[in-house]
Amino acid sequence: MLPYILSDQMHLIEAGQLTDQTKNTFPLTLTTGGDQAEERIASLPLIDGVEFATAATGIRYQNRSDVMLVRLCADTEVVGFFTQSSTRAAPVLDCEFKLQSQTASPSAIFANSGNANAFTGADGFAAVKRIAAGVATELNISADHVLTASTGVIGEPLTPDIGKILSHMPGLKSSLSPLGMGEAARAIMTTDTFPKVAATEIKTPSGPISIAGIAKGSGMIEPQMATMLAFIFTDAKISRMALKTLVNEANSLSFNAITIDSDTSTNDTLLVAATGTSHHPELTRKSDKWPQFSHGLESVMASLAEQIVRDGEGAKKLVRVRVIGAANKIDADRAARAIANSPLVKTAIAGDDPNWGRIVMALGKSGAKLSCDQLTISIGGHPVAENGQVATDYRESQVADYMKGSDIQICIDLGIGKASAQILTCDLTHEYISINADYRS
Amino acid sequence: MLPYILSDQMHLIEAGQLTDQTKNTFPLTLTTGGDQAEERIASLPLIDGVEFATAATGIRYQNRSDVMLVRLCADTEVVGFFTQSSTRAAPVLDCEFKLQSQTASPSAIFANSGNANAFTGADGFAAVKRIAAGVATELNISADHVLTASTGVIGEPLTPDIGKILSHMPGLKSSLSPLGMGEAARAIMTTDTFPKVAATEIKTPSGPISIAGIAKGSGMIEPQMATMLAFIFTDAKISRMALKTLVNEANSLSFNAITIDSDTSTNDTLLVAATGTSHHPELTRKSDKWPQFSHGLESVMASLAEQIVRDGEGAKKLVRVRVIGAANKIDADRAARAIANSPLVKTAIAGDDPNWGRIVMALGKSGAKLSCDQLTISIGGHPVAENGQVATDYRESQVADYMKGSDIQICIDLGIGKASAQILTCDLTHEYISINADYRS
Repeated sequence: MLPYILSDQMHLIEAGQLTDQTKNTFPLTLTTGGDQAEERIASLPLIDGVEFATAATGIRYQNRSDVMLVRLCADTEVVGFFTQSSTRAAPVLDCEFKLQSQTASPSAIFANSGNANAFTGADGFAAVKRIAAGVATELNISADHVLTASTGVIGEPLTPDIGKILSHMPGLKSSLSPLGMGEAARAIMTTDTFPKVAATEIKTPSGPISIAGIAKGSGMIEPQMATMLAFIFTDAKISRMALKTLVNEANSLSFNAITIDSDTSTNDTLLVAATGTSHHPELTRKSDKWPQFSHGLESVMASLAEQIVRDGEGAKKLVRVRVIGAANKIDADRAARAIANSPLVKTAIAGDDPNWGRIVMALGKSGAKLSCDQLTISIGGHPVAENGQVATDYRESQVADYMKGSDIQICIDLGIGKASAQILTCDLTHEYISINADYRS
Repeated sequence: MLPYILSDQMHLIEAGQLTDQTKNTFPLTLTTGGDQAEERIASLPLIDGVEFATAATGIRYQNRSDVMLVRLCADTEVVGFFTQSSTRAAPVLDCEFKLQSQTASPSAIFANSGNANAFTGADGFAAVKRIAAGVATELNISADHVLTASTGVIGEPLTPDIGKILSHMPGLKSSLSPLGMGEAARAIMTTDTFPKVAATEIKTPSGPISIAGIAKGSGMIEPQMATMLAFIFTDAKISRMALKTLVNEANSLSFNAITIDSDTSTNDTLLVAATGTSHHPELTRKSDKWPQFSHGLESVMASLAEQIVRDGEGAKKLVRVRVIGAANKIDADRAARAIANSPLVKTAIAGDDPNWGRIVMALGKSGAKLSCDQLTISIGGHPVAENGQVATDYRESQVADYMKGSDIQICIDLGIGKASAQILTCDLTHEYISINADYRS
């Protein structure tokens, strides 16, 4: 199995061995969040066989696009990963069913923002059916080949708005264009403050393979086996099974390794579509370009995941929590998540306060096996705690200065074994409360 | 086993069958929080054989008492329950060891606020030893019979302050008095805004049995098998084993059924001391007064637990989450905790927003078995969701009015089985962020 570049780089960085060349292979951290969104959109590649259209239906938001239609060329392979919530929304259950029972490839994806169509009973399923039928009629395909996704308020019926949505179908069809991916990223936003896109290109003798994706998500983010809405497209030729394996591996290190507020959505949906329109022969584990493709897919997914955290509701800081020295992978993940989800750790970070005792508290409640005497905590490379107490040369003012930055790295060695994990999160600020308490998001 | 009165009353209230008499048996909800603290302190009973003293040592806070000394008469039985954190503080480990290996009864309890003496390594244990020795010398008892507890900042050495603490020992000894329990409740406060006390009396032909207790806690509250600091005293004659059984039962329904911020302290300590000085014969399961004593102990613990939640950092509302119809007890607890710990549910409550979709989300991520089609949610008795969608006669304005109150009841029927659970929590407000991000608490 291909080692994950991000993890490897963390080790290299920690060991001071990261060469410039390795650094350039993969952006460990996006230098910026929203302020470079327009540049990222401008440099999106076109994926042959994929067309986008958007419209402003006014379901919930005014004066902005809120639905997205994607048409996929024939024989596109699509794999999907979804929330593990037991109150999964109607479009999620519909996608799962269609992908499991698919006889032919999906031909279209339709998404709306502003209404999650979750916990909407039989009416919710009827709404999905009517939307899929509307798309199918317009594009002259089977409704079984239309996947849908929704994001927004839970529990509000979507039925009253179906008419509005259907009235936009002819307009959507006529505006389908390979150029529309950036606008599609805007159409799926809810409390997001910037559209999230990422892309990469793998050079091959028979021409490039492109991978590009969009995502949305800002609150209700601790994906379980999936993400918020994310749609990734590639022109690679690859079998459905091979694609599924690759996406599954990358998922555990990208979308499944982030948390904003420990809350898991009813609607998390990740769809990855491979059109097979590139000139490079089919990718298999034996292909020369398999490692590069795998790495490219991971880098696109990791970038989108990081953008989601960077745009976490109210977030001012991106926090990378890395745990090493764990007895096993589960313990490493548990320890990292306990820190990443602790309101007290996250508020301390918001306040630029190197209150590392709260990290000790979070580790203590995590259930992960640890040795107090061997436990090491560093913040931004500064040793903070070691051997069961404050580090000998700990200077609080030094760490307090580091905490004023917008990218915070916390590294913990549990001192037990060799397993490691990394979770991205953000700080917990007044703005999170404002967004979620002061008005309905 | 004695059914828990609080739970029974919930059922009766839901069924509209609660008589005035039953209502008076146990205060389901304290009508107020801090504004009646002084009244509660004024009506505390004296527990024969228990004396209190406090002092202001200035370890962290200025112009307020910050240490508490309790002297217990000979043959007092003491049981303790502690945090299950794997980074337990030195005084917690010391208490556990002393209680497990006790050959005679503990004779004194010493507590300090402002410094948790947690993750302080060998120095932390040395600090506990020096404090216990100081108390022992002053009271002319063995240091093995001195229990200590600490609460405050994690990771800061207590050693530099031991001199200050020890210098107050003579003064503490000379001011020991059965009247000092209220001041002791003040001395253990950290971010608490009011002292927490509760008491009850069981009438018997041979005179009353009294139970009274104090507690502190406001943040870092999701106790695992224990609580923040709580000290409960009774003059009942009861064996250590019988007391332990009763406290364990009551604990799971009081201190272990609350959460403020999902964070578990390194220092949670509950000590219950029975002096045996009342005139009533030894209490056993066969005693006439056993049910009343058991209920009395539960009511004191439940009241203290509720006061902790009511004084949750930044809290404006007390929220009672009740789950019924669960497949088993674990699922009921898991579902209730998922709601009680969800930042999105708690911010919605802070904003008086009946955004019940977030409750659906929390149930979905909880892992508890549920039936969407049978799931019922009510808020303040108003049906909100049923049969997998919004309730037929749901009026949002009605529930929004209810949400403006300071006591919120959320009831969920998972529609699967017969198990139930109840968790008390509070809302998540701007003030929680201020308290924990704007300065070090």
